[in-house]
Amino acid sequence: MPALRSEIRQGAYYDSVVLMQLQRGLLTLPGVLDAGAIMATPVNLELLEASGLRPAEAPSSDDLLIVVRAETDVAAGEALAQVDALLARRRASTDAEFRPKSLAAATQQLPEAAWVLVSVPGRFAAGVAGDAVRLGKNVFLYSDNVPVEDEVELKHQAAARGLLVMGPDCGTAIIGGVGFGFANRVRRGSIGLVAASGTGLQAVTSAIHALGGGVSQAIGTGGRDLHAEVGGLTALQALDVLRRDPSTKVIVVISKPPAPEVAGRLVGAARQTGKPVVLDLIGEPSFGGRLGNLHFAAGLEDTAEIAMGLSASISSSPSPPAPSAGHARYFRALFSGGTLAYESVLALQYVLTPLATNVPLRPDQRLYDPLKSRGHTILDLGADDFTVGRLHPMIDNDLRLRRLRQEAADPETAVILLDVVLGEGAHTDPASEIAPAIAEALGRPGLTVVVVLVGTEEDPQGLDSQREVLLASGALVFSGLRQALAAVVEQLPAGETVWPSPVPLESFASPAAINVGLETFFDSLVAQGAAALHVDWRPPAGGDERLMGILAKMKSSGKASQAP
Amino acid sequence: MPALRSEIRQGAYYDSVVLMQLQRGLLTLPGVLDAGAIMATPVNLELLEASGLRPAEAPSSDDLLIVVRAETDVAAGEALAQVDALLARRRASTDAEFRPKSLAAATQQLPEAAWVLVSVPGRFAAGVAGDAVRLGKNVFLYSDNVPVEDEVELKHQAAARGLLVMGPDCGTAIIGGVGFGFANRVRRGSIGLVAASGTGLQAVTSAIHALGGGVSQAIGTGGRDLHAEVGGLTALQALDVLRRDPSTKVIVVISKPPAPEVAGRLVGAARQTGKPVVLDLIGEPSFGGRLGNLHFAAGLEDTAEIAMGLSASISSSPSPPAPSAGHARYFRALFSGGTLAYESVLALQYVLTPLATNVPLRPDQRLYDPLKSRGHTILDLGADDFTVGRLHPMIDNDLRLRRLRQEAADPETAVILLDVVLGEGAHTDPASEIAPAIAEALGRPGLTVVVVLVGTEEDPQGLDSQREVLLASGALVFSGLRQALAAVVEQLPAGETVWPSPVPLESFASPAAINVGLETFFDSLVAQGAAALHVDWRPPAGGDERLMGILAKMKSSGKASQAP
Repeated sequence: MPALRSEIRQGAYYDSVVLMQLQRGLLTLPGVLDAGAIMATPVNLELLEASGLRPAEAPSSDDLLIVVRAETDVAAGEALAQVDALLARRRASTDAEFRPKSLAAATQQLPEAAWVLVSVPGRFAAGVAGDAVRLGKNVFLYSDNVPVEDEVELKHQAAARGLLVMGPDCGTAIIGGVGFGFANRVRRGSIGLVAASGTGLQAVTSAIHALGGGVSQAIGTGGRDLHAEVGGLTALQALDVLRRDPSTKVIVVISKPPAPEVAGRLVGAARQTGKPVVLDLIGEPSFGGRLGNLHFAAGLEDTAEIAMGLSASISSSPSPPAPSAGHARYFRALFSGGTLAYESVLALQYVLTPLATNVPLRPDQRLYDPLKSRGHTILDLGADDFTVGRLHPMIDNDLRLRRLRQEAADPETAVILLDVVLGEGAHTDPASEIAPAIAEALGRPGLTVVVVLVGTEEDPQGLDSQREVLLASGALVFSGLRQALAAVVEQLPAGETVWPSPVPLESFASPAAINVGLETFFDSLVAQGAAALHVDWRPPAGGDERLMGILAKMKSSGKASQAP
Repeated sequence: MPALRSEIRQGAYYDSVVLMQLQRGLLTLPGVLDAGAIMATPVNLELLEASGLRPAEAPSSDDLLIVVRAETDVAAGEALAQVDALLARRRASTDAEFRPKSLAAATQQLPEAAWVLVSVPGRFAAGVAGDAVRLGKNVFLYSDNVPVEDEVELKHQAAARGLLVMGPDCGTAIIGGVGFGFANRVRRGSIGLVAASGTGLQAVTSAIHALGGGVSQAIGTGGRDLHAEVGGLTALQALDVLRRDPSTKVIVVISKPPAPEVAGRLVGAARQTGKPVVLDLIGEPSFGGRLGNLHFAAGLEDTAEIAMGLSASISSSPSPPAPSAGHARYFRALFSGGTLAYESVLALQYVLTPLATNVPLRPDQRLYDPLKSRGHTILDLGADDFTVGRLHPMIDNDLRLRRLRQEAADPETAVILLDVVLGEGAHTDPASEIAPAIAEALGRPGLTVVVVLVGTEEDPQGLDSQREVLLASGALVFSGLRQALAAVVEQLPAGETVWPSPVPLESFASPAAINVGLETFFDSLVAQGAAALHVDWRPPAGGDERLMGILAKMKSSGKASQAP
């Protein structure tokens, strides 16, 4: 009859590799059917239960729980009696004696190391990463379960010193050809990447490699970097590195859904890099097109393909858009077509900020008084509000022409966009009314008018003749919304980006690194030929939370008594 | 000195064309600088104010307001004195005497008309459309400002009779080659469209035409059809028409953001059409790929291009997926990569429903107990919850293998998807542990295992050898997520779609139509060679709200007294 036996070790610290190997060791013992060696969190207890391994005891989350199910109770007991021997076997196999015991000692032993890889358990990770920053090192912070307040503080401290903190929960990076954490071996090349995610970065770099391309740098940020609290600090530093890095010709930005204001800042900075940038904002509605140097991708494979196409085709880098000169800097779109208005909001929401509209995607985009434009403004003049007792603007141009004059008179208006939609049911000759109004508006210097003209040559108005009349007015005329919006963005000055203190490019050349945590990451650095050191790290107070608390109190009261 | 004079006509009804022509007439009079003739809604009053035309009076929303700004007060007064003459001139120009005065009379005069176009003001529109449905006609409901309750009732009444109500706020349709409302003249062809939006439909049909393609039918639904209240009734009927229509080879669905449950039903029905379907869910995160017969597009131009490619390439129609046979019908994904999990949710959220996950896009997708799958389930086993005191699933396969066995043992599981991510830092030989578990799982009949394998041939594990071992286990192995998800969808039986009562295809052959409202729509039907009649419609009680209320009360009390 199978029997279950368990053992609890209170507040003990073992790293996850040790626990995995302990579990595997237990499984090789005579009569053992299944085993678990795990920190006793609620989720882990439920996982044990699903495997029929949950013991009757209720240990705390900080306890180590070892469980064995064996053919007999005697076999289970004998297996548990081997735990210390199995742990000792593991310890003896490592050459611990040759290793520095602290990060400080390691930095003296390998002073050229510009990077520290941190993969200790989450509750210790911010402490180790903070030590690394104070020692002047960039950090690759693999650990998860790190509080966001700690992330914010770490990143600000690092940025102030021109240091980069990738993470927490940063699975992947490729720095100077060396993979940190989980990273595929890929050709070196001209595509530089910045990504919140680990596997996103792995999938795209692998796809670039498969397509024959290569990677200059792949910088991780951690999954929360674009949240409002963190503000995209690491992503902005990474963009800055890639724009300055001469080996990077094309930049790829992969992110999970960003906070809108952070996305606006990030995309604004991307415009200012002066290099082509492929954006894959995962989970955001995609506008499959190009706006200036920005290329919007839908999905990881699409991202790799677009980046490859750009890296193959560019001869010279685009120059960054000119910063705003004078007052004229805003975009005003006066649509008769609701879907065209809506698609424009989708396409431009992070490119032109602040953006206000009567067809908002998010509440903060709502233009409360549709009669007065505010910043960049996109109006659907066929919306219900405007059509009570009035013909649709596709039939009656009166409302749009009045608004066109109003926008042209506003010295802040730089570009006006109109759609002209031909076809059955619509105005029989819209260009005859709209073109003179455009010509009049263009009398004001510094103004551009862009028209998207929808129709076919079979339409009663005549597509070609309408286009000619509109062109003669001085407008730029396009038949597709994508091209029209690209023209709009190219006409507009860019907001200025305040770049953070630069992270020196030398750190990205051929990295030397110190590893604290998972030994496999050290092994992989060595296998890749990087100069590396592994710290024989132990948690403060042996990982005992109670003791750690006492130590922390003693430390702070010591500090207090030293104060004058 | 310019002077402003105005006149109010209480509760008077004029159609919008008459008002536009009155305004234009006033502008031609001597000394007149500007003029307005408009229903006095708050928005319209503000618009008048923006043009310096707002009078001191405060008329009600139902009143007609006529304003004139002229060089002198005398000129303004003289202009206003011309209003009745201008209105009379307009009326005399139409051949009103030859026109039916009611919809009922029109249907007797043109019995072959299967369609009624309704573009009367919103407050009267539901009434006219309801009359059309009761007379057995399909409705193109251009009017906006129609209450959603009226839309729901109308559509249910129509659907029960096998009739279609496009709208309200339906700007565009092309039925049997004839454009209704605003529609571009495009080649007839093999692409059938259903769209919420007017200009979306115009832009895509124009682009298809420009690319050399053609349109079989273009069916509008109105902007609210996919809201939860309406439930996508018109869209479902339209899909049903296009799947039965032999001239339609490729279907295009364009929608604004749908209610999630409605989107799931619609996409499920699209899978069942047995034809290639291009989906442009505007404002939804796009997965730029193909899943079975579904092709996901990002933007209007992309939509046209994909549809064209499909219409050029298909030789035979795909057969619809088999409905579920037996218990095995659910998808279970066990990812080690968070971004791959997240992208899978994006791609599948409307294709496989209900979908539950620990990386939800929306709260209703959350899998509350990540240890138990529910319906289609996507798990990120590298999420923070699972990694406390445990190695990441890229290093330690234990957790995933246990879950793989659990899912394989569930008779409802039809397809299991795993990612295997190679590279530095990861398990040195994942296939050696995962392949045997897959082979064991595949011992259960009716189960498919799909693997997405991320890596390069330079990776320490060896991409080719890992692939071979996994293939030998019986798994389907893909290097990209897109292909892997496409394979998943092809392996899964589809839920059954309950199609509504069919709308007869004869109505879509060469339409005859009755027009109620904007005369320009009638003119355009005639210009296109369609058999058409225009009803000389007048609102009940001359549009007087008070009188209409009294009439309605008399009518209902009359009904009540007739009841037994």
